[in-house]
Amino acid sequence: MTSADRVAVLGTGLIGTSIAMAAERVGDAVRGFDTDAGALARATERSGLAPAATLEECVAGATVTVVSTPIPAVPEVVAEALRLAPDAIVTDVASVKSHVASEIRGVAGADDLARYVGGHPMGGSERSGPDHASASVVDGIVWALDEGAEPTALERVEAFVAKLGARPVRLDADRHDRLVAMVSHLPQVASTALMGLAAAEEAGEPELLLLAAGGFRDLTRLAASSPRLWSDILVANADAIGRAIALYVERLSRLREMVEAGDASEVERAFGEAKDARLSLAAKPQVKAGVAVLQVPVPDRPGVLAELTAAMSQAGVNIEDLQIVHSPEGGRGTVHLTVAADAAPDAERALRDRWFEPIRLA
Amino acid sequence: MTSADRVAVLGTGLIGTSIAMAAERVGDAVRGFDTDAGALARATERSGLAPAATLEECVAGATVTVVSTPIPAVPEVVAEALRLAPDAIVTDVASVKSHVASEIRGVAGADDLARYVGGHPMGGSERSGPDHASASVVDGIVWALDEGAEPTALERVEAFVAKLGARPVRLDADRHDRLVAMVSHLPQVASTALMGLAAAEEAGEPELLLLAAGGFRDLTRLAASSPRLWSDILVANADAIGRAIALYVERLSRLREMVEAGDASEVERAFGEAKDARLSLAAKPQVKAGVAVLQVPVPDRPGVLAELTAAMSQAGVNIEDLQIVHSPEGGRGTVHLTVAADAAPDAERALRDRWFEPIRLA
Repeated sequence: MTSADRVAVLGTGLIGTSIAMAAERVGDAVRGFDTDAGALARATERSGLAPAATLEECVAGATVTVVSTPIPAVPEVVAEALRLAPDAIVTDVASVKSHVASEIRGVAGADDLARYVGGHPMGGSERSGPDHASASVVDGIVWALDEGAEPTALERVEAFVAKLGARPVRLDADRHDRLVAMVSHLPQVASTALMGLAAAEEAGEPELLLLAAGGFRDLTRLAASSPRLWSDILVANADAIGRAIALYVERLSRLREMVEAGDASEVERAFGEAKDARLSLAAKPQVKAGVAVLQVPVPDRPGVLAELTAAMSQAGVNIEDLQIVHSPEGGRGTVHLTVAADAAPDAERALRDRWFEPIRLA
Repeated sequence: MTSADRVAVLGTGLIGTSIAMAAERVGDAVRGFDTDAGALARATERSGLAPAATLEECVAGATVTVVSTPIPAVPEVVAEALRLAPDAIVTDVASVKSHVASEIRGVAGADDLARYVGGHPMGGSERSGPDHASASVVDGIVWALDEGAEPTALERVEAFVAKLGARPVRLDADRHDRLVAMVSHLPQVASTALMGLAAAEEAGEPELLLLAAGGFRDLTRLAASSPRLWSDILVANADAIGRAIALYVERLSRLREMVEAGDASEVERAFGEAKDARLSLAAKPQVKAGVAVLQVPVPDRPGVLAELTAAMSQAGVNIEDLQIVHSPEGGRGTVHLTVAADAAPDAERALRDRWFEPIRLA
């Protein structure tokens, strides 16, 4: 289970290179291949993987092959990897499972299919390319694996994923696609649509974005993600995305009706339900039951975050999350510190000792 | 312009108490009143304002009266404040201007109206109540003022607002309402609808939120805002909100059509436009032209943010914004540091000296 693998990484973008780095970290030997020679060179430099001249050379002798190409190329590459290395298990990292699996069934040898396990590491960021890769990308993340895969192969991939530091979770492919459409793909669409709309409106109202505060920025951060990556994902998960957008539009339209009808108590009820749901969302999964958020007003000058974080460090308190809530033009800001609930009293004491004035929010 | 005012604050919630604190910071004498005796007591404790037993006592002798009650009460309270203190200018902080102004015209004396200036400090947070107040809430924020107000009164309120540390911006009331509907009220609605939808879906799919990563959390943070405050705002700005939601729904539906039609290049084009717009959004207004974002992988343990921020402090680099992008279960995370572009080389050097491996993103 924790024995060393020979890993072949096909496609050395952000995720492929990050997986290579995580595998090297635990002592695996990693070879990589990419049809983009520049990307392969940067991935080699960044991660220390051994670059291969061809796909065939890359997978020769591998025990695990990870296919991390753009989605449209995944089926062909998986089929070829299965064919060329008859002893290796093959997994992919496409964010959409059902559509990809059915295409793979169309192109791969029937005997080879037992060695394929569809996967989806739920990490990544709005960045892309090997330059932004890091082993940390896979740390602690949920890594979905197709529970319909052949059991022995599935167990091998689970062991590999766990060894890298991620958390394997078995899911049916259709169900996976429906769930990620809701919590990953729909937020992306919602963010992009909001940014696109504001940009279109700004053309006639140059002062529009002057009025955009932190909330707008939070909601549009995802809109900076890779257009190519996302168009591939959305088109490959069209049914589930279509359903998620439709449900979202329905809910927005219902809110619009309540607002236009002047029905303040119905609006308040809908907002109350969403607020309760949001407050029960964890800052981090393992501290779900017990996080505390401290609001700390801070002057906006060099050194103040250093003081604040040093106070936490000296008190032995791990910072689960840190957010600068106001980033005004100058003067002052506010920091939201999330810590484990049982560490909150220590954190508050340490902050007060340094003349900060934390307020416990949750 | 910078002479001391006698300030009356009517309504001592988050914003009223924050304004009281900002006024006291620059040497103004502040009296406060709230129909909720508990809120007034907490505001008194927190800010040091002088509590008044009645609205009349509060505004007696004031030079500036700030009405920071819930929106439905604003018109009556403004009218009464104008009548009771015939020398004071009166401003309010309602997030919606047009509807409120027309109601005020219905209840206030015609002669008194020349001393009323509608205002909207664009700060606040998803929190509420005097316990979360801080003078920092108004620092550097855009504070919209109705450009249709009587010029002398408008100039006095501009001077007051600037003295508190905010940035007065003149806007027509209708235009204000249309703009904030787009960049403040619509993001709130979008966030609430997304959280509400996910919560409803979770009822049948308990694992749904297990798959929710950072993007989902970013998009739903606002959903924790006060339901009462927001139902008041939305209903008072129903026309502009209705229009904004309709435009948003139209854009979402167009994306849905492109996705369902399998039109990857159209989807990519729409995402590309939004990405460009997002990248041109500033991290902070005054550094709009020149910020740099550094991505720094960090181990997830006490002290690491202290080290990182100490490095910035010792290099004399001000941190404009800091975001923990991955908050995985354990192991490692990623920090996005925003600094002024001309400070970026110093920041990178200081980080490398401490064995961090920053990657410059923008």
